[in-house]
This record gives sequence, C-alpha cells and structure tokens, in this order.
Amino acid sequence: MSDRHLTDPTSLSAIAAAAAIRAGEITSEGLVHACLARIAEREDDVRAWTHLDPELALAQARQADAALRSGPAIGPLHGVPIGIKDIFDTADLPTEHGSPAFAGRRPSRDAACVALLREAGAVIMGKTVTTELALLTPAKTRNPHNAVHTPGGSSAGSAAAVAAGMVPTAVGSQTAGSIIRPASFCGVFGFKPTLGLIPRGGVLMQSHTLDTVGVYGRSVDDLALLADCMAAFDADDPVSYQPSQPALLATAREAPPAAPLFAFVKTPVWPDIDPLTHAAFTRLIERLGNRVRAVEIPSLADVIEWARIVQLAENAHYYGGLLTEAPHHLSAGLKQRLEDGLKVNVQDYLRALTAREPAYRAIAGVLDDYSAILTPAALGPAPASLEATGNPILNGLWTYLGMPAVSLPLLEANRMPIGVQLVGARRDDGRLLRSARWLTTELSGG
Amino acid sequence: MSDRHLTDPTSLSAIAAAAAIRAGEITSEGLVHACLARIAEREDDVRAWTHLDPELALAQARQADAALRSGPAIGPLHGVPIGIKDIFDTADLPTEHGSPAFAGRRPSRDAACVALLREAGAVIMGKTVTTELALLTPAKTRNPHNAVHTPGGSSAGSAAAVAAGMVPTAVGSQTAGSIIRPASFCGVFGFKPTLGLIPRGGVLMQSHTLDTVGVYGRSVDDLALLADCMAAFDADDPVSYQPSQPALLATAREAPPAAPLFAFVKTPVWPDIDPLTHAAFTRLIERLGNRVRAVEIPSLADVIEWARIVQLAENAHYYGGLLTEAPHHLSAGLKQRLEDGLKVNVQDYLRALTAREPAYRAIAGVLDDYSAILTPAALGPAPASLEATGNPILNGLWTYLGMPAVSLPLLEANRMPIGVQLVGARRDDGRLLRSARWLTTELSGG
Repeated sequence: MSDRHLTDPTSLSAIAAAAAIRAGEITSEGLVHACLARIAEREDDVRAWTHLDPELALAQARQADAALRSGPAIGPLHGVPIGIKDIFDTADLPTEHGSPAFAGRRPSRDAACVALLREAGAVIMGKTVTTELALLTPAKTRNPHNAVHTPGGSSAGSAAAVAAGMVPTAVGSQTAGSIIRPASFCGVFGFKPTLGLIPRGGVLMQSHTLDTVGVYGRSVDDLALLADCMAAFDADDPVSYQPSQPALLATAREAPPAAPLFAFVKTPVWPDIDPLTHAAFTRLIERLGNRVRAVEIPSLADVIEWARIVQLAENAHYYGGLLTEAPHHLSAGLKQRLEDGLKVNVQDYLRALTAREPAYRAIAGVLDDYSAILTPAALGPAPASLEATGNPILNGLWTYLGMPAVSLPLLEANRMPIGVQLVGARRDDGRLLRSARWLTTELSGG
Repeated sequence: MSDRHLTDPTSLSAIAAAAAIRAGEITSEGLVHACLARIAEREDDVRAWTHLDPELALAQARQADAALRSGPAIGPLHGVPIGIKDIFDTADLPTEHGSPAFAGRRPSRDAACVALLREAGAVIMGKTVTTELALLTPAKTRNPHNAVHTPGGSSAGSAAAVAAGMVPTAVGSQTAGSIIRPASFCGVFGFKPTLGLIPRGGVLMQSHTLDTVGVYGRSVDDLALLADCMAAFDADDPVSYQPSQPALLATAREAPPAAPLFAFVKTPVWPDIDPLTHAAFTRLIERLGNRVRAVEIPSLADVIEWARIVQLAENAHYYGGLLTEAPHHLSAGLKQRLEDGLKVNVQDYLRALTAREPAYRAIAGVLDDYSAILTPAALGPAPASLEATGNPILNGLWTYLGMPAVSLPLLEANRMPIGVQLVGARRDDGRLLRSARWLTTELSGG
C-alpha cells in the first residue's frame, strides 16, 4: 500500500491520504491534481460533478500544504479532498438542488456540516450531482462500473465519484435510501448514521422526520472518521443530540469483545430480491456459519408503509409550493409525487408518525441479542437503465426508524457490486461500525 | 400564620404544611382529617372529586407520621395531601378520564409523575374531576367562589379543590388552557411548566405536541416545589429534557438581580376582553409603572390558529377510535370535534407543526429584554354558566410554543378572581417563577 499510493494517490482511503499528507509523503496539491486528472479521465463517462472549479480546489490544497509547513495544529482531514452533494450549501460554489427551479442559487454560508469539514481541514473538491430535489427523478450520473446502469440516487454523484476514484470520500444524504442504495450500486462504503448525529442546517430539507446526512468512503474507518468530523449538536433541530464519546473511529477500531453475531433479516420484500443477489446472500450466510442467524421481525411491512406516508406528506410540505411557483421546472414524476403528498390523510400521517417509537422499541430488542441486523442493501445490483434510480424499499424502513446503517461493498452479481447492509441500534453507531469492520476484514481476508 | 394553622391547617401552603409536619407542629393525619372535614363541608357544592377514599388517604398519612417517628430520610412533601386529576394513572384508585368510555378503569401502575410525588412523601388524597377526556365538555365541578359559575376546565376539580381549601396543592394538565384558565377562574396559583419538564408517562395523551403536566398551589413557592418534585427525564418521550440545576424553588426564592421588567402583551384577542378585566389590567399596568412596557408581538394570530389545528388533528388521532368503538359514550361536542379533527388537511397540520420553532425563536427575543410576558390568564372572570368551561384562547398559544406560564390570583372583577398570566422563556422556568414571586409580593404587600 505505502508503495502504491506514491504512484496512484487516488486509490488512497481518506485516512491513508490524511496520514500521507501529514507525514509529508504526498502533498494535498499533488493529491488534488491526481483527483482532477482522474476526473478529467472519467467524467465524460460518469458525470458525477455539477460544480467543479479546479482552481478553487487547488487553492484550498495549496493553503493546506502551506499550513502544514508553517506548523499550526491541523485537523484529521487536513488536505483531503471531498465531494459534496449539491443539496448542501457552500459559500464558494453554487447549490442548485438538482433542479432548474434553483438554477444559479448561490448560498452565502456553508451548511453546518460543510463548515465542520473545513474545520477538520478537508478540501471541498466540488459539488456532486443529486437527483431532482434529492428524490427519484434521475440526473446525468452513470454507474462507474457500467455506464448503462444507474448509479442509484439521490446521492448519485457522491457515490459515483468515490467509486471512480475521483475523490476518496464524499458527503450525501438519505431520506429513504439515498446513501445506502448508491453505495450498493457503485460498490463503495456508505454510512447513514443515527438520525440527528450530523447537523442538517444548510441542507435542503425534504422531510424533517427522515432527512439524514451521511458519507461515502473507501473503508469503514473512513466512514467513522468523516462522521466524527461532522457530528455536532444543533440546538435548533429537535432530532439533534449530543454525539457520544468516545469518537466513532476509536470505537470502530476496537477489537469486538467477541466475534459479532448478526441477525439476518429477510424483510417482507425478500421474494422481490433478484436471483443472483439471493444466491450471493445465501452463500454469505453459509460462509458466516454460526456468526449469523435468521431473525423474523414481524412488523416490517407496516414500517415500510409508515415510512412511505411520512415522506410523501413531508415532501409535499417542503416542495409543494413549487407546484404553483415553478411547475414548468418540475419533472412529471415529482409533480405527481407532490400532488399525492397533498392528499395524504392527516390521520394516516399521524399514525405513521406516532407508530415510529413503539416500532423502534420492538425492533431494538434484536440489537440486545445481535451485534447488527444484516440484510441486502438493495433488491439487486444496479439496474441496467438510466431512466430510474432503483428501489429504496430496503432502506426507507431503517431510515424511518432512525437506525444507523452501512453498505459494505462485499458481494457482486453479474459483475456488478451488491452491498451488504448492516443496521445498528440508534446512537450506537460505534458498535455498528466496529461490527462492519469485523465483517469486512473477515470476508476480504478469509 | 404559625398560630393560625393550629386552628385551620387547611389554609396552609404545601410548603408550610410540609414544614409544620416536619417540625412536629401538626401531623399528616391531622392535616388529612382537616382536609377531609373541609371536603365534607364543601363537596356537595363544589364537586371537585371523582374518586375519594378517606381511609386510603388516612392510611398514607399515618404511614407518613410513623415514618417521621422512626426516622428515615423524608422527602420535601412528606405527609402533604395532594389532589390528582383523573387522567393521571394511580395504582390504588381508578382513573376514568372523565368519560363513561373508561368507567371502572383501574391502572396497575402510577403515572411517572405520581410515583415521583409519592417518593417526595406526598399523600395522594384522591382523584379530582376532569372534563370529558380533558377537553371542553364540562363535568360536575362548580366554582368555589360562586356555584353558578364554571371553575374552568379541563383541570376543574384540581383547581377547585385547592381554591376550596380541600387540599393545599393539586396536579393538572394543559393542552390549550387547562391549568391556567381554571387557576384564573378559581383564584389559585397555577403553573404550566416548559413542555417536557415533567414526564407524561401514564397520563392520558390527547396531543403529543401540546400535552403538559402542571400544578396548583397556594403560593409561587408551592408551584416551584411541586414542579421540582415531579421534574424528570423520560427517554421515551421526545419532548422530555434533563431538568436544569439549581432546582426551581431555589431560583424562585432568589432576589432578582434587578426589579423585573414585564412585557405587557395584549394579544390579538384584547378587544374580546370583558370590560371589568380590561379595567383591572389597566390599573395593574399603571400601578407597575416603569416595571412594565406594552410590547407588540405581530405573529400571535397565526400562532393561535396553528395551536388550534395541531390540537384538533392530534385529538382525533388519539381519541378518534372512540367514534366507532364507543360513540354512545361521547358527548355531541366531542364527537363533532373528533370529526373535525379527522378532516384537518395534512399540509395545514404540517405547516402548523413546522411553524412552531421559527415562531418561538421570533418571540423568545422578547424574553431577552424582559423578565416575563404579562398578559391576562383569561378573557374575564369565570362565566356564570355550567354549560361551558370558558375560552382557552389566551393560553393555547403559549402552550403550543412550549413556554412556561403561571396564573397568579392577584386581580378580581365582580367579586370573582382574575389571574395575571406570566409567560417565560422555555427551560427557564426558574426565572419565570422568581419574577412571579416578585410580582405577587409587590402587589400583595404594596
């Protein structure tokens, strides 16, 4: 590895890149140059970026290199380039939410979590493509593994950029399955933390009940470090909470007290899983032997429906005004979705909202007996289509429950990646990442 | 005072009663006997109680007296009788929610805050009358000052029992104006703390966004002590928070750093205030001189409407099932209310819910410049009718905003009490009570 990054710094994880910069083995400017070269090489094909200003990125990198020479304290991401989904406000680049309704929008301030990344020393590489308003209508991005396949959505550009080696790490968000599904389809590590771990200020809101900030990286450690850098309490957001100590990276790197035990949860949509993915998971379960047991969770069909109702109603609350203000800028699919959301029955919405805590308490018991829930990250590998971004049905339920989830790029079918999704207990993201690290080592090394 | 309570212990505040018991000047049994005698004398007229078991109350009192003799550590309410609104679960008395739909209901456990009162040493005197499901349909209670007037609602029995000298203190709850309005109408001290200070577990839920537990007493100090005894964090309730230190009673008893300055807020319903109340407030403002200034808060008409929509929709969520399960047990007024609640538009509800935090932030600025908002507790004194419980419109807005409020029995019109309502900043209940104590002393002593 230490030889390899000298010739190909774009293969470095965020943690390895930060260490190499700190040790003087590479410069931030050199790394950003390498990333820009990779972007130049792959962007026509992948289309991951919506705002990219090479000079702005290089200027940040040179500043990071200068700071390192002049000697002040540096942050854990010092000099490391990162892609930011284009629904996160940035003071130095446009933020257009993947919609012509917001064309030319230039926020004056960074989103809270972008500011935290800058404090940690990161180089904001540019803004990555999001689907229309972070919902289901596809944008221009294509799957780096095969350009006729979708990269997933809505954090399409962030996942694809990391997968294509354009940046070691990137930020996304998930309301149903917008981090985990693209991670699975693009074959990268993805992490949607517990609802409220990372502040949402300055991020486009589509559902206050569900919206969750998350990250992509090249390893579980990358996910932990990124989340550590962005975790903070936001007194103005009722879902926010004080991040726990010790930090996630420290916990993730601990040896588990015993080999983790996984609860394999098929979910009610198991019959819809594609055959090759079914086979890959069956082999995985066999290989894990006594480290995994099939567990039935009875209420998940209801949970899937509650998640759908909450998102539909809240989408229409936050975006419904566009139906009258900018209808010509909305896709037909989004218009229909907003009209459906306006018609949700208030009592269905309230039932969906108040069912969440009892449902979580019922499911949380599984995490007393198991290290994490193990379940597919998607119904199959990325569909061979650019007309849709795939189905988030295996993700929305966990998002609704506020539970942290990762997608680990450990399987494949038909030469396309499939993610293994692990889901943990709320506010115990460290244990989830520790289990994810164990599983990754076990399957990569074994 | 110390002579008087020997002949009339029912005139004691909760704090004075606790001190007298601790000092051996009176016994808990003697106090409970005196309260029972007062109940026997006034109950035919006032009708404050729905479940009263004199032997059960006396047994608790004798146990308290015995504990005092045998010497274990005692709580701050040791031996003090307290009335509990009949929507709070009690393990030893029925809890029927003021509705025949729950006739004979016997919970197996105390509500969390009732358990805390027992830990503090209180004698649970009995269950006080609530209106139907703590909403607007009147129950049997009558105003102790004049039996043809309403006591207000929904915590009718708790306010009336304290006003009639039947117990020094009682527990109630407020979703719109169910603590402050009865306090005003009955001429007692009432306190609705910040949303989430006192746990709601085991209390009938009619609106998770609004329901707030509160107390009645004979002084501001009583309110502070009672709230201190009941404040606790409830991890299962998203509105709950960790109570602050120091305790409210300690803060309430501090001398204010400077004489408080009150923001007199007329609210949009000022034209509906009855003429005698209008005159009483005008005199009060004159008397307070430079300690009060009229302040306009522009958005309050919207806030009143948002509070109404949230309550209507959530009432139907929690009680709507009764329309099919027990329609014959519902009053016509409640049926109509639930049917209206089923029809609330989900987007109106979401707007009302998401408007709350920005509205609070806009209003909270007033509390940077003023010690508290001063405003009438009701549109006038208790109406001369038992067919309705009066209008909560001067209370629901502050409940919706989650702000702590007190009603102080400092004014009257037509020989009936009118409360002065003070409203404070969220989670700063101690400062509100300190200001309330200053105002009470200033006006009573001056």
